Amino acid sequence: MRMVDLIASKRDGGELSTEAIQWFVKGVAAGTVPDYQAAALLMAIYLRGMSRRETVDLTLAMAHSGEQLDLHDTVPFTIDKHSSGGVGDKTTLVVQPLVAACGVPVGKMSGRGLGSSGGTLDKMESVRGWHCDLSMPQFKQQLREIGLVLAGQTADLAPADGKLYALRDVTGTVASMPLIAASIMSKKLAAGADAILLDVKVGSGAFMKTVPAARELAEIMVNIGHDAGRQTVALLSDMNQPLGHAIGNALELKEAITTLHGDGPPDFWAHCREVAAQMLLLAEKAETLAQAQEQIDQARVSGRAWHKFRQMAIAQGGDVSQIDEPDTLPQARYVETVCAPQDGFAAAFDTDALGWCTVYLGAGRLVKTDTLDHAVGLLLPLKVGDRVTKGQPIAVIHANDPNKLAQAKTNLLATITWTNDPVPGLPHFYGTVA
Amino acid sequence: MRMVDLIASKRDGGELSTEAIQWFVKGVAAGTVPDYQAAALLMAIYLRGMSRRETVDLTLAMAHSGEQLDLHDTVPFTIDKHSSGGVGDKTTLVVQPLVAACGVPVGKMSGRGLGSSGGTLDKMESVRGWHCDLSMPQFKQQLREIGLVLAGQTADLAPADGKLYALRDVTGTVASMPLIAASIMSKKLAAGADAILLDVKVGSGAFMKTVPAARELAEIMVNIGHDAGRQTVALLSDMNQPLGHAIGNALELKEAITTLHGDGPPDFWAHCREVAAQMLLLAEKAETLAQAQEQIDQARVSGRAWHKFRQMAIAQGGDVSQIDEPDTLPQARYVETVCAPQDGFAAAFDTDALGWCTVYLGAGRLVKTDTLDHAVGLLLPLKVGDRVTKGQPIAVIHANDPNKLAQAKTNLLATITWTNDPVPGLPHFYGTVA
Repeated sequence: MRMVDLIASKRDGGELSTEAIQWFVKGVAAGTVPDYQAAALLMAIYLRGMSRRETVDLTLAMAHSGEQLDLHDTVPFTIDKHSSGGVGDKTTLVVQPLVAACGVPVGKMSGRGLGSSGGTLDKMESVRGWHCDLSMPQFKQQLREIGLVLAGQTADLAPADGKLYALRDVTGTVASMPLIAASIMSKKLAAGADAILLDVKVGSGAFMKTVPAARELAEIMVNIGHDAGRQTVALLSDMNQPLGHAIGNALELKEAITTLHGDGPPDFWAHCREVAAQMLLLAEKAETLAQAQEQIDQARVSGRAWHKFRQMAIAQGGDVSQIDEPDTLPQARYVETVCAPQDGFAAAFDTDALGWCTVYLGAGRLVKTDTLDHAVGLLLPLKVGDRVTKGQPIAVIHANDPNKLAQAKTNLLATITWTNDPVPGLPHFYGTVA
Repeated sequence: MRMVDLIASKRDGGELSTEAIQWFVKGVAAGTVPDYQAAALLMAIYLRGMSRRETVDLTLAMAHSGEQLDLHDTVPFTIDKHSSGGVGDKTTLVVQPLVAACGVPVGKMSGRGLGSSGGTLDKMESVRGWHCDLSMPQFKQQLREIGLVLAGQTADLAPADGKLYALRDVTGTVASMPLIAASIMSKKLAAGADAILLDVKVGSGAFMKTVPAARELAEIMVNIGHDAGRQTVALLSDMNQPLGHAIGNALELKEAITTLHGDGPPDFWAHCREVAAQMLLLAEKAETLAQAQEQIDQARVSGRAWHKFRQMAIAQGGDVSQIDEPDTLPQARYVETVCAPQDGFAAAFDTDALGWCTVYLGAGRLVKTDTLDHAVGLLLPLKVGDRVTKGQPIAVIHANDPNKLAQAKTNLLATITWTNDPVPGLPHFYGTVA
């Protein structure tokens, strides 16, 4: 097989055979396919697309390029969740304990923040001592004993995807539906879950800006899951405004703890409840969504979900006093309230810009090697449709640098569009793809 | 400027600015644009195309990436000729002396054989001692004194094109009209000719298989020439059968010498006469094509063209006895006649396969480092439309290896399609683009 023939075939709109795709991915993983040939093929795929069969083949080939976990020696059934990334998205911290408390083991390998989206691991690392570096035996032991693990890249999952992603990033070939879907699903398949719940975000703070685009991506990923023999469901959820109130690591962790205790922002709880209930349905722990929601509510009210979270935090070295008293988590030196600049209604947010506003405060990384400031961020209870009067507090900025604080205030206000006429609130969800 | 932005712009069908194209080509020449990014852009150009303005900008940027000759300190006006490559195409060896004999200096940097097409330098090197390695002062001196130079890559012309061509070759991005046109024209512009005659081949032995495709390429190249301020004309000429009878280095050189002496295959002479006459028109040495043809005929009949050729051969170290007695040029050990396998009419040739048949005999290179056998090749006087009877001689194979001889016989016969019904002959030309 010759790489130049594969490139020419896709260039001319042809369909690559299963063997050709496997050969390509093996070559990428082994380093025998030069980057310039891979780049030419990626651009041809970007412009010519891939059939469902090709996309599944690519995903499976990438999933098979490294370790593939089989957790059935540890637990009979596991479920995994993936969010396509959003601002204020601390869902995993609440949903994992809820589902685990209902008897469904959740062993998750999670990621770091990327661009304007925060990372679950970064948020948990606000807790002194907590770490995510588990060996595979440790991962399995914790999954067996607690039913809840939040690990880093414990296994070398889908290394071919890692190499191709790095290349896509510098060759203008990131925003291809089949390539995005294959990248996400290859890691999920390799991680060994029996069922996968996909939380596909839509809106100004998401990669997918429109519902049709998000639905297309969701359908491709669900198809891949089904064709690979995994139960897979996707939710299309709103990201036209931040999820909950908090953006920033310790602030989001506090909000997650509050939510597990039965309080927290209503939109965030509505989101977590739906995601967790869909996971119970996937795990066949409930027959109807209403039954699943009832179980999820019980897991929260009873304190069982909080207990699971606490067990996980302790098992992974976290200082339990900080979990029990979240006010002892890292605190910023400067805390300043931002007030409404005019009377009116909040009509829209540039949610991506809100994410970048917290990154500039120090809550995220501009380059991979940046150290995070866990204390800084925003609290923004304002939602689209809310009416305000001029001078009314709408947000609080937590900062450790007065210059960055001033910049954040300007940036924050620039992300909000105001109107004089009433505006309807935003839905939490736009549908389900199963 | 960021390469990834250029790639994304072209990927989305945008037009690259002059500055962006210049920045890209400079980066390629300097090695600061990585191959994988150049490959992604080349594929985006392949699939999205380039406007006339972009193509001219790319050509000029590549022409400016290395040395740019200005021959006006040597001669007031020079003309160059480019053939898009074909089988049996020894035109340069006859046309250059014809034009030079009419008082128009022709200083040409020529190439080696590529794929199934032979190279002019390889053909001349059948002459003992002849060489094409001229320094720039030698090139200019010979151009001034004789008006005729046939050099190799004497100057470092358009090095960015060399790098991009190597990358296109391995990334499936060769067959792009703007990229082909820019590649050819960048070297011609850098070589400093005031006027350029393009001989664009069409048919089974050419890169362009159809007249519309060849016309499209010709129009792009002529546009580039005009926009760069050079007088440029393209001929569309037939390559559905070999040009003349001889294919192979010494055999083609002999045929060129015979033609300069006033004999030779009629189709080959018709071709040379037209190309040379068009060059005289471009150089404004004649007012009509008929006048130009008359001058060309005179240059041949008078022996002046032959004299020019002889001067060039001697000036570049060639053994004049071999030129004067072509039978002393390299001779193959095995010379075998091939006979018609049936009664009928020659309906079509797979001309590319005929070219490869001589490459396998040793007349061309399978890899860049192969040494040529100047003696081997074919003589194939058969033309489309010719009637034959079974057993009638149709070709002669010259070989130095009995196994290769046998293989060549099989290969040769497989390239010819026979019919029982009469077939019209092929035209020499399909038109002119000016």
